[in-house]
Amino acid sequence: MPFRFDDPPRFPQGFRCASRNVGLKPNARDLALFVSETDATAAAVFTRNQFPGAPILLGRETIREQRLRAIVANSKVSNVATGDEGLKHARRMAAAAAAEVGTTPNRVLVSSTGVIGVPLPIEKIEAGIRGMARELRDNPLDGAEGIMTTDTHPKALSLRVGAATITWVAKGSGMISPNMATMLAYIFTDARIEAAALDRMLRDAVHVSFNMLSVDSDTSTSDTCAMLANGLAGPVEEKAFAAALTAGCIRMAETLARDGEGATRLLRITVRGAASDDDARRVAKAVVNSPLIKTMVHGADPNVGRILMAVGKVGDVRLAPASTRASINGFEVVRQGALVAFDEALVRAALTTHTVDLVIELGVGMAAATAFGCDLSRGYIEENASYYSS
Amino acid sequence: MPFRFDDPPRFPQGFRCASRNVGLKPNARDLALFVSETDATAAAVFTRNQFPGAPILLGRETIREQRLRAIVANSKVSNVATGDEGLKHARRMAAAAAAEVGTTPNRVLVSSTGVIGVPLPIEKIEAGIRGMARELRDNPLDGAEGIMTTDTHPKALSLRVGAATITWVAKGSGMISPNMATMLAYIFTDARIEAAALDRMLRDAVHVSFNMLSVDSDTSTSDTCAMLANGLAGPVEEKAFAAALTAGCIRMAETLARDGEGATRLLRITVRGAASDDDARRVAKAVVNSPLIKTMVHGADPNVGRILMAVGKVGDVRLAPASTRASINGFEVVRQGALVAFDEALVRAALTTHTVDLVIELGVGMAAATAFGCDLSRGYIEENASYYSS
Repeated sequence: MPFRFDDPPRFPQGFRCASRNVGLKPNARDLALFVSETDATAAAVFTRNQFPGAPILLGRETIREQRLRAIVANSKVSNVATGDEGLKHARRMAAAAAAEVGTTPNRVLVSSTGVIGVPLPIEKIEAGIRGMARELRDNPLDGAEGIMTTDTHPKALSLRVGAATITWVAKGSGMISPNMATMLAYIFTDARIEAAALDRMLRDAVHVSFNMLSVDSDTSTSDTCAMLANGLAGPVEEKAFAAALTAGCIRMAETLARDGEGATRLLRITVRGAASDDDARRVAKAVVNSPLIKTMVHGADPNVGRILMAVGKVGDVRLAPASTRASINGFEVVRQGALVAFDEALVRAALTTHTVDLVIELGVGMAAATAFGCDLSRGYIEENASYYSS
Repeated sequence: MPFRFDDPPRFPQGFRCASRNVGLKPNARDLALFVSETDATAAAVFTRNQFPGAPILLGRETIREQRLRAIVANSKVSNVATGDEGLKHARRMAAAAAAEVGTTPNRVLVSSTGVIGVPLPIEKIEAGIRGMARELRDNPLDGAEGIMTTDTHPKALSLRVGAATITWVAKGSGMISPNMATMLAYIFTDARIEAAALDRMLRDAVHVSFNMLSVDSDTSTSDTCAMLANGLAGPVEEKAFAAALTAGCIRMAETLARDGEGATRLLRITVRGAASDDDARRVAKAVVNSPLIKTMVHGADPNVGRILMAVGKVGDVRLAPASTRASINGFEVVRQGALVAFDEALVRAALTTHTVDLVIELGVGMAAATAFGCDLSRGYIEENASYYSS
């Protein structure tokens, strides 16, 4: 792809952020504030989990006006399954950020991630927000640090499109199998884009990126992907912008997958030759979620017959066993639905690379899809067998 | 339940078995032969995986006549993804067993489990079958030992119904999320039952037992559940027999779940108050397969908010968040869609029991279902990151 991401990532014109420790975690930063100097056109997609958190309920209301000035997000406590009290807390959090920034609560998007079912320590958050406006800087990694949960590093990307810039800030790690957006992904641009176009471009980009990401097949109750366009760089060529937006969303989905809980490698599953887009997506997701594929990749164990198992278990997808093919990082391992004789050492080597590309050809049509995931390691078990307690 | 299983398990009249090491594994038994002294009425269900093994293709052909004299099964090599050669090997295996037992190949069901995509060492198997008829005994655990892969113990159960006996012999462990039957489950009875009734009763029992079992959500290419009724005990009261059959299939599914790869506990998910049987089954399976629920149970970590996440991620199921309830071994942890204040120590203690019963009430209808699974531990990773290599 011809896109060159900035190193280090930077913000578009008119966006700044800050993050702090407000006492939710012992020492690490646990609150982030992102601010546009003017109201921005906004679009957002949220989790389809049927038990959405209070910030999601509030966010759906806020985004209806398609205008945002700020995003405020805390980690450690997700404010999910907290009832009416939780919704009041989310509103107080929006109001606190609005007062600090100098806008109204309906221009502030709120996110909370972390443990489910614990009351949000709203007083700590309100006190913590005070004074943050003075700390706003133009480094997106500052904000990325404040939204981390089990992520091992803050995640931000940026890219120029004509005179405009697009910046992504996200977190991921666990309970990641977005059904509408990722855990938290914020996208900022100074391009001038009207709300309907922004919404359409965001949904298209999310469809092939965050919605094809799965660390563990568990869909969070907090997933949010929001995009703010403040217009300071003027209009952009829509096609080029949409392509850049999609490229960055895919890159960020890969970044989240690679840093999935316990992950040691990015696992990229491409399905081609499917009868429909839906078939291609379902097979790619089944394979990327298969514990036996994930452990095979983790151990670099050339047990590649599991590929056929994982493809075949998706019962109602059209496929032609006799013309199914598969390759790992370019090494063909399945031909005509059966394993080919392969050099075990080469396949083992292919499975130890930083990125493992598994390409599956179904041989029945023209549709294709790519899913993004990671291997399954002892680290995932260790993090999640004591997430609440530790 | 009023059913009392025999201890130790025994065979119905006229059934015997033997097992041997024929050189597929270094030392452990790797071949089992089950024989009825007369032709038995038979029914079977097989995997719905779209890449079924050669023994499945042959088994579908064999079972059409609804008569079986014997079952021959090997472990270590599954004879899956092996093309035409694989089917020839499966036929040779049936012929070898038929010659040894004194019947025709169309009366022998063949099963193979183990690594996918490796040619079946058919000469070793043919040589190994010779002389086994002389070793047939009436202990079902002998046969159960011969079909083990990563199982930690052989699995057999038996139960009396009137004058008849039903005996189950099975293996499970990994790649277990049957979509028609379990990895391998053989059921023997001396009851006299006509083929159509046997088939119907078997399918009904499998629906609520093996088809609700999931160790790791991965559906094997070799799943087979076959039932043989040799009639030596005469006719039985069908209702009582069907109830006993179902009870034993559920008990065996629980036994397989409890011995899932790396498992330390049986996890039983019961969903009640669903709008339909299908909804209840899908929610129960989503929860039993959730890595975050499985690791929570493994670590006895009272992170019970994950229950709502796992229920809510099944997007198209009808539920009423405000009336959703959940309990763990009798302790209520969710009420009206939110977490209740609970004693952490008690919930932690409930999560360390041998069997963890999670009951979820959706509050929208009358349908219910129970799924059987296990926790997710480092042991699962260790077994599956080097299954092929070790």
